[in-house]
Amino acid sequence: MKHLPELHSQFDLSEARIDRGQLVERRLSDLAGCFEDEDSFAKSLAKGNPLIYQVSSQEPGNGLGDMHFGIGMLMPGRIGDEYYLTKGHLHESREAAEVYICLSGTGAMLLEHEQTGDVQLVPMTSHSFVYVPGYTAHRTVNTGIEPLRYIGVYPANAGHDYQTIAKRGFRHRVVATTDGPQLLLRESHS
Amino acid sequence: MKHLPELHSQFDLSEARIDRGQLVERRLSDLAGCFEDEDSFAKSLAKGNPLIYQVSSQEPGNGLGDMHFGIGMLMPGRIGDEYYLTKGHLHESREAAEVYICLSGTGAMLLEHEQTGDVQLVPMTSHSFVYVPGYTAHRTVNTGIEPLRYIGVYPANAGHDYQTIAKRGFRHRVVATTDGPQLLLRESHS
Repeated sequence: MKHLPELHSQFDLSEARIDRGQLVERRLSDLAGCFEDEDSFAKSLAKGNPLIYQVSSQEPGNGLGDMHFGIGMLMPGRIGDEYYLTKGHLHESREAAEVYICLSGTGAMLLEHEQTGDVQLVPMTSHSFVYVPGYTAHRTVNTGIEPLRYIGVYPANAGHDYQTIAKRGFRHRVVATTDGPQLLLRESHS
Repeated sequence: MKHLPELHSQFDLSEARIDRGQLVERRLSDLAGCFEDEDSFAKSLAKGNPLIYQVSSQEPGNGLGDMHFGIGMLMPGRIGDEYYLTKGHLHESREAAEVYICLSGTGAMLLEHEQTGDVQLVPMTSHSFVYVPGYTAHRTVNTGIEPLRYIGVYPANAGHDYQTIAKRGFRHRVVATTDGPQLLLRESHS
């Protein structure tokens, strides 16, 4: 009997880390340009540079039919009225979907179809799946008061295209209102 | 703003069910031929036909790059010294991998590579990933005393080939011993 330990990976949900995972941390300064209210961003950054989110991921194989996976944690907070968010990305292989499994916290997945422009704000609630179809820019926002923790699974050939988002941005943003989270057009796109 | 609710699916971990999921239930009678000890199987079945496992799954898309997912629950128990198990399968698209996320319980994933014959018994512990590579027959066993609950994510084109397993069977089985779970060659294969 062979035990090939790399096929089994314990994860720590509280810390959002996978054993032998590759860790990426994004601090506030890494998110320059992502928030609409640049004054509030500058004021927040002057006070400190907190961790906004981290992703611990594994890439067990890179062949046809292989998959990669990661566990993410997005902290609660806002810049002005805009909730903390991930940079967001498209997949380099545009057709690649992604399955998200939200395990704790409250948030939403902002989806913008690259070609049709269709937009959706899909709830992320504890113990739910969120399906991100292909050809869709996706960004996670934390609309709650606790860390949002989730797993993502995607085809090994998906790849991450952050450049297109960095250049064009999302057309919408998710803001706190007295009626709860609302989706608004960004001023630069309105 | 459009809410397309089919992209968000709440799941009940305790019941292992996904909203709008397709449910498959396997009772003891459905597992005829899977256990080595046919006398014990017949005796158990004479006493009742309990649920052994269930899988609730969703297939959000079937195009290139799409993925399917499901949540499974395998009950604890034994037939003779052999732990309760799933039928097990290969993927019709042999190269397709599968990512399992074990969320509660204690068990193992029995892996047998179709071509090389390599065998592995990979632990399934609460809060762990188990990566099932392509070309690999895989079967879940519950070696604990509580239900084993897990999520599986796989390419939409993976498909499930149960026939090859039904015909040839797994070459190994997982049995309870005083030293804990052990992997043995089946008598019909030894």
